[in-house]
Amino acid sequence: MTTILRKHHFDLPDGVIYLDGNSLGPLPRSAAERAAHTITQEWGLELIKAWNSAGWMDLPARIGDRVAALIKAQPGSVTMGDTLSIKVYQALDAALKLRPNRKVILSDSGNFPTDLYMAQGLIDTLAKGHVLRTPPPDDVQDAINDDVAVVMLTQVDYRTGRLHDMAAITARAHAAGAVMIWDLAHSAGAVPLDIAGCAPEFAVGCTYKFLNGGPGAPAFIHIRPDIAPLVNPALAGWMGHEAPFAMDPDYRPAPSTERMRVGTPPVVQLSILDAALDVWDGVTMADIRAASIALSDLFIAKVEAGCPALRLASPRDGAQRGSQVSFHFAHGYAAIQALIDRGVIGDFRAPDIMRFGITPLYLDEDDISAAADHICDVIQTEIWRDPKYQTRARVT
Amino acid sequence: MTTILRKHHFDLPDGVIYLDGNSLGPLPRSAAERAAHTITQEWGLELIKAWNSAGWMDLPARIGDRVAALIKAQPGSVTMGDTLSIKVYQALDAALKLRPNRKVILSDSGNFPTDLYMAQGLIDTLAKGHVLRTPPPDDVQDAINDDVAVVMLTQVDYRTGRLHDMAAITARAHAAGAVMIWDLAHSAGAVPLDIAGCAPEFAVGCTYKFLNGGPGAPAFIHIRPDIAPLVNPALAGWMGHEAPFAMDPDYRPAPSTERMRVGTPPVVQLSILDAALDVWDGVTMADIRAASIALSDLFIAKVEAGCPALRLASPRDGAQRGSQVSFHFAHGYAAIQALIDRGVIGDFRAPDIMRFGITPLYLDEDDISAAADHICDVIQTEIWRDPKYQTRARVT
Repeated sequence: MTTILRKHHFDLPDGVIYLDGNSLGPLPRSAAERAAHTITQEWGLELIKAWNSAGWMDLPARIGDRVAALIKAQPGSVTMGDTLSIKVYQALDAALKLRPNRKVILSDSGNFPTDLYMAQGLIDTLAKGHVLRTPPPDDVQDAINDDVAVVMLTQVDYRTGRLHDMAAITARAHAAGAVMIWDLAHSAGAVPLDIAGCAPEFAVGCTYKFLNGGPGAPAFIHIRPDIAPLVNPALAGWMGHEAPFAMDPDYRPAPSTERMRVGTPPVVQLSILDAALDVWDGVTMADIRAASIALSDLFIAKVEAGCPALRLASPRDGAQRGSQVSFHFAHGYAAIQALIDRGVIGDFRAPDIMRFGITPLYLDEDDISAAADHICDVIQTEIWRDPKYQTRARVT
Repeated sequence: MTTILRKHHFDLPDGVIYLDGNSLGPLPRSAAERAAHTITQEWGLELIKAWNSAGWMDLPARIGDRVAALIKAQPGSVTMGDTLSIKVYQALDAALKLRPNRKVILSDSGNFPTDLYMAQGLIDTLAKGHVLRTPPPDDVQDAINDDVAVVMLTQVDYRTGRLHDMAAITARAHAAGAVMIWDLAHSAGAVPLDIAGCAPEFAVGCTYKFLNGGPGAPAFIHIRPDIAPLVNPALAGWMGHEAPFAMDPDYRPAPSTERMRVGTPPVVQLSILDAALDVWDGVTMADIRAASIALSDLFIAKVEAGCPALRLASPRDGAQRGSQVSFHFAHGYAAIQALIDRGVIGDFRAPDIMRFGITPLYLDEDDISAAADHICDVIQTEIWRDPKYQTRARVT
């Protein structure tokens, strides 16, 4: 397999095999340094002047271009800020305005809950008779018809890692006259993408998973450049104004995707993310993908060989899978806790999913083999039956 | 005057007199340390576990209680996150839903533009015939009538520092059956407040000004506790769900103000803010207010004595003024640049406002006197005519 390993860029603690980079990526060394610089040198010494002198105001666009390169979107089509939930709301609202005579938001039953909640909140707020349809993921293509205003899907299923066919679904949505929104939460930095080629109207995502931007790192939103001038933002914030410091009493949106900026940008978290993206310099997504599939296949083979009690929840075919491997196990919560106790960090998703992120930036075959051995040992010895592993933490 | 000075808590650069804490508060020493701890120890070593072990998930509520204490709101009534623009949208949307038969959003012509833009964006999105009225600030009380669904005002005018009478306007709004929203952007940490006593339905604010939370620090929102269960959030994010990790397909709001949480909290910026709030331990807002008025009166007296070309834009009566002093001057932009060159940092707001924040946490009478002397010198010598001070930066 291609070697990608960039573990030296990260501050992973000794004795830890980190299989949860699909939830929260680990700390890149450069990010800690950059945060200290932004805080003590820029904020501390430049004070208010740093908005100009340190380029704070341009961070959303500049980092947006770095994310655009990773998802193969057009330069200038991505901006950063807020949270993924907010970006979903912005995209959905804009999509419905682009299709005023249609009433259906089509998603799928496997979508991450907050995407569905944001749709529900928008529907309630508009009170114009929109409906949210959530067929099973496999049925979603056939559910795209002329009633559908917008198709909103997360490419990689957060539980199983199942991958939607982005090109085919986008083409189908467009053939039916629907707007397409892709949520790339588990895609950006995990699988090769071609947003400019697929040409969905909107793509959104977060940066604290495979992009290692840190807890609560800002989200991103892409608007297809031809659509941007047509978007009428619900969240019409001053930073999305054509001239924020003109203090105009009337909102006039910025010409590009920048109109999706809302309030004052989170400068410290943006700076951390900016540094975290340095890890990707010189890495190709094709190499990452090849390594991810090879490591995942190895992981599946070893776990299945050593613990038949676990049933694969992810697609067996690497081409159908994001960069994670999940197993069903009735005692999955306790088993994950026992593994964390040994330094093998995965996570649990209700009702019975043991989930492991496979991230070639800082995991190699030795890590994967060792992790699989620990999993099999924990399952075979039933050490997860220890009462200390049964108590649920608030966040799982 | 009462001495408040806590300059030793801040990392102010040598030679700087910082009169822009009403735009971006300076770096508290403890904030730099806390950021490093959160990044290297919590994120770096605890990784995903830090959501529980480091209490990340509870930061919005825990810090919300600290802000609640500063604005005299009920414990549990404030939560943190997003930006002030987003919080304005949430409050406005919730207010309109509470008054479905009324169509008027009443603000004033002096409100900060993003508040007006968010109202415009919401009105366009709802498309139900709502209107935004913006009479001059002095006329706003008389404009409150039975058509008004919601009164949304910023207590302290960002240009002049003029202070609205919060108690009187809130009472008038309630007498007319309107919902009241106060934007406390220039109030929190600047003037004594009594949110629980005034009892507006909503209060929102930012934390990067007088609360020194850093660039892009998260915003806050207060809901009056009796109203919280009635609020139906437009931005129905998973973190505002009653049980975020149940992965319920349907949104059910959390019982309290927590329903105004949206997406994953910005942990690093929240941690910085948490540390920044330590500066307030042992400080009373009454003492801050007394010192602010005394320093502001001194500043006005010295500037007016030394440079008659500047015309006071702020109320002369300290009781009618927030914690800033502004002057009209046709060449204000250039004069502010010349002052910054000397280390006296204020800012400019179009069309002709020279604005100076008066912050007793880190400014004393010597600072204020020295700043006034510099201002008078810059104006009298007309050094601001130097061409280098005429070019506008992007952010002013």
